[in-house]
Amino acid sequence: MNKRLDAQMAFLNEADKLKSVIRATTLCDGSRRENSGEHSWHIALYALVLGEHAPVGVDINRVIKMLLLHDLVEIDAGDAPIFGDHDIAAMEADEAKAADRIFGLLPNDQGQDLRALWEEFEAAQSPDAIFAKSLDRFQPPNQNLMANGGSWTDYGVSYETVETRVGSKIARGAPALWQWLAPKIKEWFTR
Amino acid sequence: MNKRLDAQMAFLNEADKLKSVIRATTLCDGSRRENSGEHSWHIALYALVLGEHAPVGVDINRVIKMLLLHDLVEIDAGDAPIFGDHDIAAMEADEAKAADRIFGLLPNDQGQDLRALWEEFEAAQSPDAIFAKSLDRFQPPNQNLMANGGSWTDYGVSYETVETRVGSKIARGAPALWQWLAPKIKEWFTR
Repeated sequence: MNKRLDAQMAFLNEADKLKSVIRATTLCDGSRRENSGEHSWHIALYALVLGEHAPVGVDINRVIKMLLLHDLVEIDAGDAPIFGDHDIAAMEADEAKAADRIFGLLPNDQGQDLRALWEEFEAAQSPDAIFAKSLDRFQPPNQNLMANGGSWTDYGVSYETVETRVGSKIARGAPALWQWLAPKIKEWFTR
Repeated sequence: MNKRLDAQMAFLNEADKLKSVIRATTLCDGSRRENSGEHSWHIALYALVLGEHAPVGVDINRVIKMLLLHDLVEIDAGDAPIFGDHDIAAMEADEAKAADRIFGLLPNDQGQDLRALWEEFEAAQSPDAIFAKSLDRFQPPNQNLMANGGSWTDYGVSYETVETRVGSKIARGAPALWQWLAPKIKEWFTR
């Protein structure tokens, strides 16, 4: 029992480092960029509040768990901003290595279970993962609208880029959310 | 539908302010104090990982939801540090007023449901709430041990004070966690 708790607390203390991984998105008031720890809280709260907009059959409790875990690999691999250019293969290799180390801190059975949940999120094939991914894409544009541009301004992107990189992924898992958001973004870009 | 989403997004955008409420506890590396948004993420992750140490009958999914919501009233009422002196009646009145405003942003039915979950947490009478409260008290001393004192040093407290204000509440809902932690804290105070 104590060895299990030792391992679980090593994992939870390591997870604390996610509060120091800085994202491209700012807070709604634009005062600073948000970190991946507080972002993970915010989108878990999105899942709790917006669950009624998920397709039938989505298990919100599993979605919330995925979202609590989804960014942990960034402790080693860093955040990959949505509008940045990335070497996808290299990033996936870094993240897999990070998952080995970080989920490997947990007791073996639990580490495997939680890593499987993270892999399900990354694969974005199951209904729960597809909805979770949609929420992960839905939060940043809402922050940007509140912050009058945020990462859109920083990266100098167009409405079309937002639609391609963000909108298509929101629409895949949560069409109602994209339908609500798209005109607001379009209005901002044609202000 | 759109009016519901308008209300839900007003709530989620308002919730963003929790990332600017600063707590007494530092990050594990002592580099800065944590905010209540990232703290909420961290203890929801504690619940996910430490659920096996909860008494039989505790519903971890409900515990996670409570923990995602538990500090939202601090947006208006501020954080009350564990080792500070507080006017409990005034604090409870401030928090009730904050709950009126913040949960009041949501669609009526949903606002009532989520407020009820927060009130259950605050009342600390149901098994789910008692375990959630234990986790809320269990995280800060772990951060303090990692940060070599943290808020214990800032507030100049003794082991006995930690046992009274923190230990008794951890032990109430999660005796195994306090049994694991107490000797580590005692050792730090007699270093």
